[in-house]
Amino acid sequence: MSRPKLQIALDHNELEAALADVFKVGEIVDIIEVGTILCLQEGRKAISCIRSMFPEKTIVADTKCADAGGTVAKNVTDAGADFMTVICCATIPTMEAAQKEVKELQVELYGDWTYEQAAEWRRIGIKQAIYHQSRDALLSGETWGEKDLSKVKKLIEMGFDVSVTGGLNVDTLKLFEGIEVYNFITGRGISGAADPVKAANDFKNEIIRIWGE
Amino acid sequence: MSRPKLQIALDHNELEAALADVFKVGEIVDIIEVGTILCLQEGRKAISCIRSMFPEKTIVADTKCADAGGTVAKNVTDAGADFMTVICCATIPTMEAAQKEVKELQVELYGDWTYEQAAEWRRIGIKQAIYHQSRDALLSGETWGEKDLSKVKKLIEMGFDVSVTGGLNVDTLKLFEGIEVYNFITGRGISGAADPVKAANDFKNEIIRIWGE
Repeated sequence: MSRPKLQIALDHNELEAALADVFKVGEIVDIIEVGTILCLQEGRKAISCIRSMFPEKTIVADTKCADAGGTVAKNVTDAGADFMTVICCATIPTMEAAQKEVKELQVELYGDWTYEQAAEWRRIGIKQAIYHQSRDALLSGETWGEKDLSKVKKLIEMGFDVSVTGGLNVDTLKLFEGIEVYNFITGRGISGAADPVKAANDFKNEIIRIWGE
Repeated sequence: MSRPKLQIALDHNELEAALADVFKVGEIVDIIEVGTILCLQEGRKAISCIRSMFPEKTIVADTKCADAGGTVAKNVTDAGADFMTVICCATIPTMEAAQKEVKELQVELYGDWTYEQAAEWRRIGIKQAIYHQSRDALLSGETWGEKDLSKVKKLIEMGFDVSVTGGLNVDTLKLFEGIEVYNFITGRGISGAADPVKAANDFKNEIIRIWGE
């Protein structure tokens, strides 16, 4: 079982704050995400600045694209992103258009998606899915449970590289023991910590403890 | 039957190009949309620049928000937007969080939404819905038809102010005759015209011809 990656989601309102955090932890994490909030606030500059700082890192543009897939994908690729997210309720033509313009596409699972849709995404060659606890759902009291884990497992069986996100902390990771998670995404788990470098290392060490080097 | 409004969608890749068009037609249209592509490319500046040019116009931020509704809504409101879009597969907590921070929320209908979901949106006080032909669906050959019109009518019966968009041109408007459409949205129907001012006036005049002053 390969070791899950660690992704920091930069969901800051300002580029300055995002750069301050990524400057500290960018080399510790495997993947750097330019979050939706940051994309909408700062535009392509948020991607291109981080690409200039970390030429070798995998960078995700979390556009949650719902339409105009080709244009959005070309734009984020031009700015320096490797991966880009599409929302699960985007149409198949939107996803296909996006796929042509970006290295890898990730489907973000929100709301009432179905396994039939997921099979369609696999059919058109999409490899990555992101299983979410919505930030707003978490705020209204929901949490990780068996029903989430079984969905994650099912998606992995379907051949997806599954990223997991939403309210994760170092203690939550062991819930996923024995599951071949592709990638753990955390935002405030690192950015919101008193010591972001320590937090990033704690996440990474816990992943290595559970899944090995 | 009140006259439908006319909204220009600024889906440019660069702020300069968007400003050049909105400078010409901003006073003709009723609503100015900062499109998703432009939001993602230029960030909040796209909204704030247009607000500074048109202090009295209704401005929409087409964020197609799927999560972190409260933060995204606060940010676009701070930048000067009146309306903001959420994607239909966003959760109810996301929509509720967004509603608190923006004057009006618009639900963008993509993919497999249901009337049960639409009833939920009405229940939490959402007044506006946007009925779409996806740009990518249009590119793959779909067009407006009776099934679209009956969905639009049903949404209006449910109490929504329904905006209509996707591949509209002056000739398409008469398909909607007799339907109380709230707002017609066009991007390249105006921006892509040889003479954007004439195109905007043609749209407006056709709306007045069909629905009256």
